[in-house]
Amino acid sequence: MIFFYTPYSCSMAAHLALEQTGVDYEARLIDFTQNEQRSEAYLAINPKGRVPALQTEWGILTETPAILAFISQRFPEAKLAPIEDPFRFAKVQEFNSYLCSTVHVAHAHRLRGSRWADDPKAIESMQQKVAQNMTECFTLIEQQLLTGPYVMGADYSICDMYLFTICQWLERDGVDIRRFPKVEQLCQQMLENPVVARITALYQPAS
Amino acid sequence: MIFFYTPYSCSMAAHLALEQTGVDYEARLIDFTQNEQRSEAYLAINPKGRVPALQTEWGILTETPAILAFISQRFPEAKLAPIEDPFRFAKVQEFNSYLCSTVHVAHAHRLRGSRWADDPKAIESMQQKVAQNMTECFTLIEQQLLTGPYVMGADYSICDMYLFTICQWLERDGVDIRRFPKVEQLCQQMLENPVVARITALYQPAS
Repeated sequence: MIFFYTPYSCSMAAHLALEQTGVDYEARLIDFTQNEQRSEAYLAINPKGRVPALQTEWGILTETPAILAFISQRFPEAKLAPIEDPFRFAKVQEFNSYLCSTVHVAHAHRLRGSRWADDPKAIESMQQKVAQNMTECFTLIEQQLLTGPYVMGADYSICDMYLFTICQWLERDGVDIRRFPKVEQLCQQMLENPVVARITALYQPAS
Repeated sequence: MIFFYTPYSCSMAAHLALEQTGVDYEARLIDFTQNEQRSEAYLAINPKGRVPALQTEWGILTETPAILAFISQRFPEAKLAPIEDPFRFAKVQEFNSYLCSTVHVAHAHRLRGSRWADDPKAIESMQQKVAQNMTECFTLIEQQLLTGPYVMGADYSICDMYLFTICQWLERDGVDIRRFPKVEQLCQQMLENPVVARITALYQPAS
């Protein structure tokens, strides 16, 4: 398998999951500072020009929730999700779907506002609301969604890897993670895992 | 099961899937014109104050991709997704994840801009870009993602139900579906199914 990633992006979630299966794969950096995600070669892999993408023996997969679900089903011995129980597996999808469609989107209005408006003042106005929106999302996560100690309760899962990934963005989004003690503790616990610490170092932003 | 929905919303996708399983369930309208989605009673069901929500024998599920995946796994005889094949099931999740995190979000900037900015001019600027963004999304769907005749090829699936749902919004988003012949044909074919026609009528906007 080949995994396409870039630092300081949501590809970290699937990267963590892959590492934690122990499976052999190649991690290939797509250099966003050189706009490599828009190169002809990469658009042939992912026509959306985004990361992550995973090249498997059956074809290419994109979109974080889909790659996470695939890794958990393809490598059941890693026990990354409750794949034997359709309701609990759906609860995993529910959490990851909330992260991709609401939380990641709330964050994206800080650096990617030009996706949704052309007026520079509109883009500035979006940036001003990011801290408030991320705070609302994390208040819901802390109070309602995170069972504790892990998202799904006692069992560590792909939900934790995805949540941990988005937590890396909170400081620059203007949100203090210490306001969310359960989330903070989950992240600290994960960082004690050497695999998580190594991938986290790989994902530091350039500046 | 109880299914919570509102007209002219993405709950149509799971509504179509439920109907097509043939299972017994109650459909309960949440009246957004009365702000019922923010009522204490409904927030106890879905603290996000959104539809869809599905009350099952094991608990409540929210988020369209998760509910669709659950319905397809819970009622395998309805053959709504290739659940026996982890890669193809992940391709279903990939498509649905793109719809929820990119296409639905692009659309939402027309009526829900206040989620991401407070300045009325910024909200207006977002609205001005919706037709362009939805056109880009549907160009990708038409040219790259929709295998044909259905999203996943020969087999009708939950992807088609979700895509059909978002297609209902195109006209008001300022996009002519006739620019996307494969998408248009898929929608026309689906409308020949009396179940789809009945649910479509239920989801017409008030004005």
